[in-house]
Amino acid sequence: TVAAPALAQTMPEIKWRMASSFPKSLDTIYGGGEFVAKRVAELTDGKFQIRVFAGGEIVPGLQVLDAVQQGTVECGHSVAYYYVGKDPTFAFEAAMPFGLNARQNNAWLYHGGGLELVREFYKDYNVINFPAGNSGTQMGGWFRKEIKSVKDLDGLKMRIAGIAGRVLTKLGVVPQQLAGGDIYPALEKGTIDAAEWVGPYDDEKLAFYKVAKYYYYPGFWEGGPTFSCYVNLEQWDKLPKVYKEAFATACAEATLDMQAKYDVQNITALKKLAAGGTQLRPYPKDVMVAAQKAAFQLYDEIAKENPKFAKIYGPWKSFRSDIQLWWRVAEFSFDQFVLTNPVK
Amino acid sequence: TVAAPALAQTMPEIKWRMASSFPKSLDTIYGGGEFVAKRVAELTDGKFQIRVFAGGEIVPGLQVLDAVQQGTVECGHSVAYYYVGKDPTFAFEAAMPFGLNARQNNAWLYHGGGLELVREFYKDYNVINFPAGNSGTQMGGWFRKEIKSVKDLDGLKMRIAGIAGRVLTKLGVVPQQLAGGDIYPALEKGTIDAAEWVGPYDDEKLAFYKVAKYYYYPGFWEGGPTFSCYVNLEQWDKLPKVYKEAFATACAEATLDMQAKYDVQNITALKKLAAGGTQLRPYPKDVMVAAQKAAFQLYDEIAKENPKFAKIYGPWKSFRSDIQLWWRVAEFSFDQFVLTNPVK
Repeated sequence: TVAAPALAQTMPEIKWRMASSFPKSLDTIYGGGEFVAKRVAELTDGKFQIRVFAGGEIVPGLQVLDAVQQGTVECGHSVAYYYVGKDPTFAFEAAMPFGLNARQNNAWLYHGGGLELVREFYKDYNVINFPAGNSGTQMGGWFRKEIKSVKDLDGLKMRIAGIAGRVLTKLGVVPQQLAGGDIYPALEKGTIDAAEWVGPYDDEKLAFYKVAKYYYYPGFWEGGPTFSCYVNLEQWDKLPKVYKEAFATACAEATLDMQAKYDVQNITALKKLAAGGTQLRPYPKDVMVAAQKAAFQLYDEIAKENPKFAKIYGPWKSFRSDIQLWWRVAEFSFDQFVLTNPVK
Repeated sequence: TVAAPALAQTMPEIKWRMASSFPKSLDTIYGGGEFVAKRVAELTDGKFQIRVFAGGEIVPGLQVLDAVQQGTVECGHSVAYYYVGKDPTFAFEAAMPFGLNARQNNAWLYHGGGLELVREFYKDYNVINFPAGNSGTQMGGWFRKEIKSVKDLDGLKMRIAGIAGRVLTKLGVVPQQLAGGDIYPALEKGTIDAAEWVGPYDDEKLAFYKVAKYYYYPGFWEGGPTFSCYVNLEQWDKLPKVYKEAFATACAEATLDMQAKYDVQNITALKKLAAGGTQLRPYPKDVMVAAQKAAFQLYDEIAKENPKFAKIYGPWKSFRSDIQLWWRVAEFSFDQFVLTNPVK
């Protein structure tokens, strides 16, 4: 037959390593990388195999971008805001405080010009990025004492990182950098006053409610964070076209799947937390107002000195304002009615 | 070589026809079927080809399920609520009035047990279904006169179909069945008083604003309708495993992609409509309250006499209530704040 050798050529056996930024204990987020690997194998009849390594197995979780950039691994699964220390521009792909919710971020990235802008930025890191997962709006963290107004944040030591930490600094918070496993003892001893992690599903497993009973919402710094797969550009260019399609579509499906999974998992976890005595509290309005103001002041400051940031900030801010116009009409009014008028 | 013949076997050339329920003029919805076809071809190196036919080309749009069931075509792209005349149970997959929003419907279908329940139901129709597209919350339709309270609906002739029509009948509305192309002249002549279609992007193209200036929201009967691909079960069973994976993942990506596309397209269309003098109006609270009450009364009535409906209604209603618990916390409070506190 003539066709067979051509097929064999287009589907060579390829083995890649994927460095995840996440521990296996964050099973839903870590699972996003595994989802991509499994789907790619299924789509290529097992010819394109990707093995996923948890954070720390090959490189530390916060060095996944570097490892992909340098070619230590062919690809990675991470979240862009881990790299805001290199450049705050990274935050646009993942989440900006008071930015877009999950669906709005998908709209911006896939059809609103966002992915093109972000990919241009990533080229300088020798990487092509694919959105691959979302958690939806995260929670606002665990507090040992109640927060009644923005004044209560003054001098408060909170485990929070990145741009969110910079925003909260403007409100008097003293951000602390702690790995996930170190949060519980620090809250217990009182060396920190508050800590943010993810949402009910992941937070419940770490039992923060035992050492900090107030659980605030929303996590206004993560309205709908997008996780990403990174691929080294030379490795990407070497892939057969059909494997590129398999990788891209698997990442897109991971975006949908992780979100659906979290939306289900958070229900049960929230019920458990409430039954265990966790006190759910909305952030006071003055905290939200002050934090949003601080966030956009910060963006304006960064945009003045960082042209890469400014290049994305302008269109991103316009898109945010535009999509909110539409959201206020059908989407929000539907949610608002059904959520405030429960059916027995 | 030993491998090549095996590969050739696993990737045979297959050609399918997909009957779409939609006209090409509904390009975003119709495009969902085309998206699946294109992705499947890309994922299989062009070996698995699906040709999409618009509604009416092979069978009328409302007979796509029947055509797939009988094997007239191998697959179809449609929306389940077109078939509530056969059995109202179909509506669960797509949209129930005052049901789930788009993300909640994804959560229910993909990880909340919904797809298993719905697929069991579809087996009686010799079909396997794949969610493949969502529009988000639709609009509540065009009205020639303002609706100030539920009394204004009494005797009102509205183009609206399916379960939504049955709900509105309980409020005095007289539902009318009209194809898309017949709506404009009927509104113009006043033979109908109101009509619902989709949302800003599709409605603007049909220029309803010229003959009915009040545009109501939200479309409470479609909080986030899921479109579907249907595959004839014998044809599905004959597919090589790798083609099954390609089809399934392409449908999932279509769900994400259509939503992102609509969320962007509706922005521009809404601005155009507003600039053209369209009067945007929220449905009065008493209409919403009466319609939700009527909807759940109807579901209770149907559940008493239809065991298939009852089997899905119970878990669906529990899921709805459960996910609303979680939504009220982080997700809704984030949206509410950013939407009601605009940044300059």
